[in-house]
Amino acid sequence: MVDRMKKPVIEIVIVGNEILSNPARDTNSRFLIDTLEKAGYPVSFISMVGDTVGHISDHFRDAAARADVILATGGLGPTSDDVTVEGVARAFDVELVFDEGVFRRIEELFRRRNRHMSESNRKQAKIPAGAFPLDNEIGTAPGICLEKNGTTLYLMPGVPVEMKKMFTETVLPRISGRFMPSDIEVATLNVTGVSESELYDLIRIIPGSEDAVYYYPGPEGIELKIVTTSESPVHSGAIRDLIIGKLGDRVFSTAGEPLEDIVGRMLAEQGLTIAVAESCTGGLIAHRLTNTPGSSRYMLCGVIAYSDESKQRILGVDGALISAHGAVSAEVAGAMAEGIRALSGADIGISTTGIAGPAGGSSEKPVGLMYGGLAVGGNTVTKKLQFLEDRYINKCRMSQAMLDIVRMYLKNHQ
Amino acid sequence: MVDRMKKPVIEIVIVGNEILSNPARDTNSRFLIDTLEKAGYPVSFISMVGDTVGHISDHFRDAAARADVILATGGLGPTSDDVTVEGVARAFDVELVFDEGVFRRIEELFRRRNRHMSESNRKQAKIPAGAFPLDNEIGTAPGICLEKNGTTLYLMPGVPVEMKKMFTETVLPRISGRFMPSDIEVATLNVTGVSESELYDLIRIIPGSEDAVYYYPGPEGIELKIVTTSESPVHSGAIRDLIIGKLGDRVFSTAGEPLEDIVGRMLAEQGLTIAVAESCTGGLIAHRLTNTPGSSRYMLCGVIAYSDESKQRILGVDGALISAHGAVSAEVAGAMAEGIRALSGADIGISTTGIAGPAGGSSEKPVGLMYGGLAVGGNTVTKKLQFLEDRYINKCRMSQAMLDIVRMYLKNHQ
Repeated sequence: MVDRMKKPVIEIVIVGNEILSNPARDTNSRFLIDTLEKAGYPVSFISMVGDTVGHISDHFRDAAARADVILATGGLGPTSDDVTVEGVARAFDVELVFDEGVFRRIEELFRRRNRHMSESNRKQAKIPAGAFPLDNEIGTAPGICLEKNGTTLYLMPGVPVEMKKMFTETVLPRISGRFMPSDIEVATLNVTGVSESELYDLIRIIPGSEDAVYYYPGPEGIELKIVTTSESPVHSGAIRDLIIGKLGDRVFSTAGEPLEDIVGRMLAEQGLTIAVAESCTGGLIAHRLTNTPGSSRYMLCGVIAYSDESKQRILGVDGALISAHGAVSAEVAGAMAEGIRALSGADIGISTTGIAGPAGGSSEKPVGLMYGGLAVGGNTVTKKLQFLEDRYINKCRMSQAMLDIVRMYLKNHQ
Repeated sequence: MVDRMKKPVIEIVIVGNEILSNPARDTNSRFLIDTLEKAGYPVSFISMVGDTVGHISDHFRDAAARADVILATGGLGPTSDDVTVEGVARAFDVELVFDEGVFRRIEELFRRRNRHMSESNRKQAKIPAGAFPLDNEIGTAPGICLEKNGTTLYLMPGVPVEMKKMFTETVLPRISGRFMPSDIEVATLNVTGVSESELYDLIRIIPGSEDAVYYYPGPEGIELKIVTTSESPVHSGAIRDLIIGKLGDRVFSTAGEPLEDIVGRMLAEQGLTIAVAESCTGGLIAHRLTNTPGSSRYMLCGVIAYSDESKQRILGVDGALISAHGAVSAEVAGAMAEGIRALSGADIGISTTGIAGPAGGSSEKPVGLMYGGLAVGGNTVTKKLQFLEDRYINKCRMSQAMLDIVRMYLKNHQ
C-alpha cells in the first residue's frame, strides 16, 4: 500500500531494561531521529519499554494506534531477556512461525565465523506469521517487518552497528518509497554570553520565529534550532539571518561546532599560539582546547596552578600581589596570564582564578566569583564574572567565558 | 483513594522537542528512575513526546490506560512551545481554569527577584479543572497533580533543579503514601581495568546473576547494577559480594562514586599531595581531580606540556631523551612524572604522553599508543597502553587508567 501523499506519524520504540535503567545509554534514537529528519521525516514519539512480554505487547498495541511507522530496536537477541518478537506477536494476536531461510542464514553466519551455533540461536529464526525478515549481514538477529492495521512495524537489532546498517540500507528506502517527506528546513545557531530569557526577548519579535525556533541551553552556550517547511511564512534560513542580525557576534557557529573548535580554527588561520594558566577551571580549558584534533599546532601548554605556591613558583606571580589582593583577584588573574605567556612563549596567555564551590566562599568573595585574564603583546585585560553555586557548572561556564574572550580577541585583532 | 496493596505501574513522560531531537539531553528520567527504584518503585515505561498539543494529548491518553502513575516533566514554561497543560486538558476533556493562588505566587516570585512579570507568565496560572497545583519555590512553573480514570498524573517542570526539589519533597511522599513499594534490592559496583566480556565471563557463573546483573560500560569503567527482590533465589548483596570476591581490587566503588572521588579521598586520608603532567590527556586528569569538592587540599598543580619545548622548559625533561626515544615513550613519561613532582613539591607525580589521534600515528607508534608515569619518593614506574582511534575516548580511557594507577599505589603503600 503506497501512500506517497501522506506524511507519516513515526514512533521510535527502544526496548530493553538497560535503557529503562539509564536512558542516556540509548544512542540509537538520536541516530534514527537525525537520519530521518535529514530525509524529511520528523519523529513524533520516542518511547522506551523494558524486557517484559506483557509491557511490550501493551506498548506496541498503543503505538500502532497512533503511529503509521514504528521503528523498534532491541530485544532480538538469543538470550532469555530478548522477548520483543514474542511481545509483538501477542500485541497483534499472531503466531510465531519458524522461518527456514532465516535459520539457514544464522547457521551460515556461525560457519563463516568458525563458531558453534547455540540452541538459543534457533529462537531467532521464529518470526510473527505474516511478517517478513530483513537481512542482517553482520549479526545473528534478523530484522522483522510486519504490517498491522495500517501501521508498519520495523523491528531492528539493538546493537548500534547492526541497526544502523539495516536502517540505512533496508528500512529508510522503504519508508521514503512509500511516504511523502516533509519539506522541513533546519538551521542551527550556537550562541554564548546571552541568557535564555534575553535571547527569547530578542528573537520572539522576529516574524515567523514563534513556532520555528527551539532553545537548547547548556553550560556551554545555547543551541538554537530553527525548523520550517516550505509552507512556513518565513524560512529557516531567513530567520537564522535575522537572528544573526540581532545577536551579531554572540553567534559563534552555524554548523553546531563547539566553541573550542572555532577558537582553534581562528588560531590556526592567524598562525597564533596559546597557553593557559588555570586555577578554578582546573584543567577544563586545556582539556577542551585539546579535544580538537590538530590542536597541538596552536596549543603550547597549560599550567593548573591550584595552590598559591604553584602560582608563584611556576607562573612567577608575585607573592606580595597574592597577599595584597588574594589569589582570587583581577590582579592575580592578570599576573597569571602574563606568567603563562612568558613561560610558554605563546602569543596569547589566558588565566582563571576563582571560587568554584561549593565551599570556600566569603561575603566579600562569594562562591562562583571568578576572574579571567588575557595577555597578548604588552596588553593584559581581566574580567570579573559571578556564577552560582554548582562546582561543575561553574567550571563549564568559566571555560566557556574564557574561550569566548579569546574568540572575540581573535575576531577584533586579526 | 489509597491503595497500599497495589504495586503501581509507573510511566515517565518527558515532554519537549529538545529531547526528541537529542534524547541524551534528558537527565531527568535517570534521576527519577534512580530515586524511585531506591524507594521501591521500579519504572515500567519511559516515553518522550514533542511540544505539539495533539501528540501530547494522544500520548497522555494512552499512557493513562497502561499506567497508575504518570510522572511528566517539561513544557510548563511561559513560552509558546510550552503546551503540556493544554495537551493534558485535551486528553482528558477538561477545561483550563485560572488559579488565583498560583498567579499570586508567580507575582510574588518576580517581586522577590525584582524583575518585571511578563504577560506570558499569566498563562502559567492556568491549570486543568479538578487538578491541584504543586508548589515550586524556585521557579515560575507550578507543578500540577490530576486524577483521571484511576491514574494519577504529576506534571513537573523540565528544569532539573526545580523538578528534583518538587519530586523529592512533594511527589514521592504522595506516591509512597499511597502505593506499596516493591521489595527490590539494588546493589551497584564500579569496576575499571576489565573488559565487558571478561567481566561477563567471570560473573555469569555466579548463581542467580544471570537475571540480576546489568552492565553499563563507559570510558570511565563499567558500572554494574544488581537488582533482586525478596523472592529472588540469591539476593543482590550476596551477588555483589561474590562479584567482589572474583574481581578483587578491580572494584573501586560500591556507592556509584567516580574514580577521582575515590582517589581524592585516599589522598586526603593519607595526607598526601599530587601533581599531574599531561600531554595526550590535555588537562583531563587535572579537570577530573579538581571536579571533587575540596580537592585543593591534595591537588597542588598540573602542567599540560603539549609541545616538546614545554616538556623541556617547564618539566625539565632532557631534550636528548626526547631526541633518542621520541616524546611518546616510557622514558619521557617517566621524566615528566619526575619533573612535575620536583617542580610542585608534591608527594606523587603522574604523567601522560601519547598519540590521541585521529592523526599523528605511524606504524611504529600507532594512534592510541600512550605511556603513563608515576613518580613517588625515589621510584618511578611507567606503563604502556594501547587504545583505539577515537581521540576523546582515548583521553577518557587514559585518564581513567592513570587515576587507577594512583589508586592502586595508594592501596598498596598505605
